[in-house]
Amino acid sequence: MIERSTKIRVRYSHTDQMGVVYYGNYPSFYEIGRSEFMRDLGLSYLEVEKGGVVMPVVEMSCRYHKPFFYDDLIEIKTVLKQLPTSSIEFYHEMYNSNVELCHTGKVKLGFINMKTLRPVRVPDIVLECLKKAINNQ
Amino acid sequence: MIERSTKIRVRYSHTDQMGVVYYGNYPSFYEIGRSEFMRDLGLSYLEVEKGGVVMPVVEMSCRYHKPFFYDDLIEIKTVLKQLPTSSIEFYHEMYNSNVELCHTGKVKLGFINMKTLRPVRVPDIVLECLKKAINNQ
Amino acid sequence: MIERSTKIRVRYSHTDQMGVVYYGNYPSFYEIGRSEFMRDLGLSYLEVEKGGVVMPVVEMSCRYHKPFFYDDLIEIKTVLKQLPTSSIEFYHEMYNSNVELCHTGKVKLGFINMKTLRPVRVPDIVLECLKKAINNQ
Amino acid sequence: MIERSTKIRVRYSHTDQMGVVYYGNYPSFYEIGRSEFMRDLGLSYLEVEKGGVVMPVVEMSCRYHKPFFYDDLIEIKTVLKQLPTSSIEFYHEMYNSNVELCHTGKVKLGFINMKTLRPVRVPDIVLECLKKAINNQ
Repeated sequence: MIERSTKIRVRYSHTDQMGVVYYGNYPSFYEIGRSEFMRDLGLSYLEVEKGGVVMPVVEMSCRYHKPFFYDDLIEIKTVLKQLPTSSIEFYHEMYNSNVELCHTGKVKLGFINMKTLRPVRVPDIVLECLKKAINNQ
Repeated sequence: MIERSTKIRVRYSHTDQMGVVYYGNYPSFYEIGRSEFMRDLGLSYLEVEKGGVVMPVVEMSCRYHKPFFYDDLIEIKTVLKQLPTSSIEFYHEMYNSNVELCHTGKVKLGFINMKTLRPVRVPDIVLECLKKAINNQ
Repeated sequence: MIERSTKIRVRYSHTDQMGVVYYGNYPSFYEIGRSEFMRDLGLSYLEVEKGGVVMPVVEMSCRYHKPFFYDDLIEIKTVLKQLPTSSIEFYHEMYNSNVELCHTGKVKLGFINMKTLRPVRVPDIVLECLKKAINNQ
Repeated sequence: MIERSTKIRVRYSHTDQMGVVYYGNYPSFYEIGRSEFMRDLGLSYLEVEKGGVVMPVVEMSCRYHKPFFYDDLIEIKTVLKQLPTSSIEFYHEMYNSNVELCHTGKVKLGFINMKTLRPVRVPDIVLECLKKAINNQ
């Protein structure tokens, strides 16, 4: 539905002694993917927070197909398949320079009112941005 | 089938500006859970590697029920539900000091021969340890 | 003057592809050293924060003598050489199982009033704890 | 002598519950600074390693002047003040979007022959690159 890409360079800090990216570093890559996705749509996560809503991750799942190596330039493709209601789901596909699919991940985030700490529906500011992006495609 | 527990103290380094443990830090907690699980059974991951086999993570999934906070002493319960064959699956349940279930995660690891880089069956050293632990229960 | 020790197990997450602990992970080890130092003296950092004071790091310096490896059980010795006034300085010495000194680090933290965001003198709660520990030696 | 700049976006993963970049994340920022410095000069760290030399950090020191916040676009300026001999020293200055100097760091790296594990002089491939960069200024 909406799809955006960004790139991340693999650093020494990402690797482990197996000589590949440590499996625990991928969630921070998803974060980069979804925040650049939002920025590309003209929406920073910071603005959502300023509106009194935080977006905690509630579920995550992923598959490690092939490893990434030091200095690889990872392409992270972030996809939104459907408009959010009480939560939002991002799909991530990560490719190496040979355009091999190395990793897939899915992250579901909720919307929480900062004051009441209760779940809320997707903020209008987010929904409008997503709809505008769909219309502009 | 086999169940072991270990504890982790939440540090500043684990928190994010939401004031809770950053969602991307849980995989490193699972690593602590499963390596202490193995150590408890008399098996260090280092020994497996010395036998020429590495255990890369191939799949992961998890749910964030409640957040952990700075200085929390997390109890991480690691469970093996069935004997491994070509892969091994660990289930993790994470509790806070009030014994509330805050997080559940599942991690599947493969067995790879370091030289051939090909999948192999579970090394005997691992299987024997697990069987002995089951018999001793 | 006051000296406390704690231990940290090296995990896969700490290593890099050189097969040793990544140089950027040491500051989080210092954090463990100084927070366990404080806990040992009967003072949690959380209590200091509840008193309205945060302790941001203002300076750090360190030397990497020998590497730590996966599964090493690091002993981190944390030393306070003088009573704090407007800042507090912790010295860290890190040893491997052969009691070889592998790493030394020094961290200076300030005291900041959370509301005014201005530097303050060391909180009484901290100073009393330190003095009591000295008297009890 | 030689000076290069690169930018880093502050992510949620970098922050801690004080609402600023965790002090332990700066060394990984230095790594980005010096590897982009080298890449800009036409030299990847990977090539140095392929030549049989690794560059472990041997010393580090830094000062935290002002915090960085979530979503800040940090400018990291990396400076080489003198040609390396048995070690190389990088100076880092980090600025926020208001061009305020928020952080300074210094990192000294050695050169180690991978096979003998003994210190060696700066590899020619590195020295030539640096000299060419100076001549081209």
